[in-house]
Amino acid sequence: MTQNSSYRDLEAGYDVPALPSAALHEIQTPALLIDLDAFDRNLEKMRAFVERSGIRLRAHAKTHKSADIARLQIEKGGACGICCQKVSEAEAMVRGGIKDILIANEVRDATKLKRLARLATQARIIVCVDDPAAIADLSAAAIEASAIIEVLVEIDCGAGRCGILPGEPARDLAVSVAAAPGLRFSGIQAYHGAAQHIAIEAKRRDAIASARALTRQTLDLIKAAGLTCDIIGGAGTGTYPIEAASGVWNELQCGSYIFMDADYRRVLGPVANDGYEHALFVLTSVMSIAPGRAVTDAGLKAFAVDSGLPTVHGVDGVTCEGLSDEHCQLDDPDGQLAINDRLLMIPGHCDPTCNLHDWYIGVRSETVEVIWPVTARGKLF
Amino acid sequence: MTQNSSYRDLEAGYDVPALPSAALHEIQTPALLIDLDAFDRNLEKMRAFVERSGIRLRAHAKTHKSADIARLQIEKGGACGICCQKVSEAEAMVRGGIKDILIANEVRDATKLKRLARLATQARIIVCVDDPAAIADLSAAAIEASAIIEVLVEIDCGAGRCGILPGEPARDLAVSVAAAPGLRFSGIQAYHGAAQHIAIEAKRRDAIASARALTRQTLDLIKAAGLTCDIIGGAGTGTYPIEAASGVWNELQCGSYIFMDADYRRVLGPVANDGYEHALFVLTSVMSIAPGRAVTDAGLKAFAVDSGLPTVHGVDGVTCEGLSDEHCQLDDPDGQLAINDRLLMIPGHCDPTCNLHDWYIGVRSETVEVIWPVTARGKLF
Repeated sequence: MTQNSSYRDLEAGYDVPALPSAALHEIQTPALLIDLDAFDRNLEKMRAFVERSGIRLRAHAKTHKSADIARLQIEKGGACGICCQKVSEAEAMVRGGIKDILIANEVRDATKLKRLARLATQARIIVCVDDPAAIADLSAAAIEASAIIEVLVEIDCGAGRCGILPGEPARDLAVSVAAAPGLRFSGIQAYHGAAQHIAIEAKRRDAIASARALTRQTLDLIKAAGLTCDIIGGAGTGTYPIEAASGVWNELQCGSYIFMDADYRRVLGPVANDGYEHALFVLTSVMSIAPGRAVTDAGLKAFAVDSGLPTVHGVDGVTCEGLSDEHCQLDDPDGQLAINDRLLMIPGHCDPTCNLHDWYIGVRSETVEVIWPVTARGKLF
Repeated sequence: MTQNSSYRDLEAGYDVPALPSAALHEIQTPALLIDLDAFDRNLEKMRAFVERSGIRLRAHAKTHKSADIARLQIEKGGACGICCQKVSEAEAMVRGGIKDILIANEVRDATKLKRLARLATQARIIVCVDDPAAIADLSAAAIEASAIIEVLVEIDCGAGRCGILPGEPARDLAVSVAAAPGLRFSGIQAYHGAAQHIAIEAKRRDAIASARALTRQTLDLIKAAGLTCDIIGGAGTGTYPIEAASGVWNELQCGSYIFMDADYRRVLGPVANDGYEHALFVLTSVMSIAPGRAVTDAGLKAFAVDSGLPTVHGVDGVTCEGLSDEHCQLDDPDGQLAINDRLLMIPGHCDPTCNLHDWYIGVRSETVEVIWPVTARGKLF
């Protein structure tokens, strides 16, 4: 447990699924469980990667939304800071002690800009812009708060979501940012999110090669305009070795590496990208049995299913057939399962699954070692 | 706001998306918004239905997880009590002042049984069993807490999820429950969840007709064994008029009627089942624009997508093309949208969407009238 919360008023089984030193079978389920040994190995693998690559890691905290995990990534895992996606997420992280945050997203609402500027008086805050019309409001908010807000120009390098067109439009936007009072131009955001999940490795490489060309071209134009790009940010767990070797990007924004999920396992295979292990599970219990099938207590409110159903960990021959709001239906043709059996399940997609839970239950040697609040859970705005 | 929480320490834009009396455009997005006029009409339509049907309503609180809404359903909406799905959900509701709760689910874990029994000393608590082996532990927990726990025998009437076989196995289970100290046999749970979402009305009717026959047969056997069924519970928003007219069920367990969602609209059409209106929305803001498309600030952490993508409310020609973690991509071929435009979106599935948010922002006449905590959000265990 951490400075973010206190055990004092917590009651196991009411407020939290378990308290430290509980045995695995005492955890109230469903619970979001971290295998701390696998987690530590994932943390160290990425640290070693960025050390030998000579590249910075700005770990994406949208995956875990935990100030405790963010602190470990910075103190032990080689990260220079973190990424967030929302102002409220960054607010929660600053309250949790994090001092260097990129909001890897556009912020346009007037009140959000005020909140962002206030945050920039308490920590290093970097934000993205993709529209010349955004600059005046952002600059005014910074001036009003007596803050300096750092700015990355986000380019659309292939994902077709946010981002200005690469090349001259991006160069012109960078020049405008650099000229705006209260703002500091800090570089380029070039994240190709869709590429992370392309199942065929050659096509993943093609997507990043295309993103690289667009980013390189934009970078050269911005340099020619006399500006320096401290940060050329992008990359995720699915592609980061490619960006790291590109000679263009200098800050990786990986998030899922710390936990892994069923979707990344399908995409990357068992050993690709440094062999990250599954460290995140939902611990569930069997609460109803019928011939050939079993029902557990974790449904759509315990798992995000946008990237597919969860998979059963460590029990061959038992598969997830479907989820309803509060139940998971398992196919168990050999009748292996009994009432109150505990099952570890691997979420299809870790980020939105973590956002469903209030607590991480960190387990080592089948004993609860830590509980960490999901600090920024529900911080969407 | 309510007895469940206090405005004192809340800061708009940090802890909550808005405070009361805020204008619509001041709400920090994404936010879970209730149209209070539509909500009030839905509440009243169901109240009038159960009054004229002479049947009880036990509103399902898994939809909203709000003690405030549960209280309104009981005080103004004709409900005799509520359903929950989890012990922790019921705990939150008892803390919120609700006194009559059916946990419409099996509870098997020893610690959960202790928590359940403790709850039964504070409120009327009813729970389901579907296995003779469950009775001894449940009875022991009740005795240890000096509580009486009411019990429904859950039958599988077609959903193929939990529930004992109808007929003699269910009758025998009822007899065992009635003989167990600390327990009171209170009737049958006969809920056909899958039937709620069958798109063809005739097939919905067939599914409930089949469930009716199984429930009727079980009821007759239990009566012949000398037991009384105070509660024959089941039905949801998709089928409740059929159960209400069946002469078998006497307690309806509808939840979604209070909000409606895009999936129920597709299944039921615009006016079926008393014409419930969309009362629940996610308020979103446009934060990036490109030709023919726009991006808003509500993604997979603001909408559950198990029953399809959200739909755009009140703007013809703009459609949701996809969600990523923090973004919604809109197709806007006519370029109707501009930066900071607010859009109301209807979730595909209301129950798991509500569970993503911490607050309901209740709006009337474009002004925030109430904020209600999602009391049992994340109470999964």
